[in-house]
Amino acid sequence: MQDCIFCKIIKGEIPCAKVYEDENVFAFLDIAPVSKGHTLVIPKEHGENLLDISDKALADTAKAAKKIAKAIVKATKADGFNFSQNNGTAAGQGVMHFHFHIIPRFKEDRLKPWPHGKYEQGEDKDIAEKISSLL
Amino acid sequence: MQDCIFCKIIKGEIPCAKVYEDENVFAFLDIAPVSKGHTLVIPKEHGENLLDISDKALADTAKAAKKIAKAIVKATKADGFNFSQNNGTAAGQGVMHFHFHIIPRFKEDRLKPWPHGKYEQGEDKDIAEKISSLL
Repeated sequence: MQDCIFCKIIKGEIPCAKVYEDENVFAFLDIAPVSKGHTLVIPKEHGENLLDISDKALADTAKAAKKIAKAIVKATKADGFNFSQNNGTAAGQGVMHFHFHIIPRFKEDRLKPWPHGKYEQGEDKDIAEKISSLL
Repeated sequence: MQDCIFCKIIKGEIPCAKVYEDENVFAFLDIAPVSKGHTLVIPKEHGENLLDISDKALADTAKAAKKIAKAIVKATKADGFNFSQNNGTAAGQGVMHFHFHIIPRFKEDRLKPWPHGKYEQGEDKDIAEKISSLL
């Protein structure tokens, strides 16, 4: 897509610290890493978010990310990693080209998870049925 | 797997607010939701994390999650959503059966992203090369 930063990175028009490339997938370091080795894995086919990309692009990107994550864990000696993807500005998506984050994690790195809530009695069943009915 | 809570949920031995089921994938509400409608999508085939599950289980689970996310957005009228997956205790993984989180997000829900850092000159290229060399 013409004005997409990530499409330009794929084409080599914008420099990056490249980690991986195959026919359908491209990966490079996030320039503002949560931790060192924080990598973005993207399909070459432009799509804005999870709802927008094809099932094939999703499967190809996830499969490549799995392989890349293994190498990141070895390279950074991470104790674990987060594999995540944000959809929409409200969810923290900055660039509107689908991307998985792989974020190396370390014991006591002090990154705090989000607070968890709870459901009122029966509320969970109601919400689950509502979602189910829309599938 | 015998002592796995999620395997027991799949078999119906532990109750849940079920959202979706097909031959290979199961989805239900997280009992401690970050936001209402927060759903876990899991492969029926037991695997601990992203590095452990098969490429097929990963593709099947991601594809189902895409469909489920669409319904969650409609059901909750979310402005966006996070699609994420934690690997290892250090990354916040609580149950050792691979699971994707789908977390509905809303404008001004005040959930803060993690702090982002930066690389010293040349450090990013060194790390990218190290990861690449291990692929």
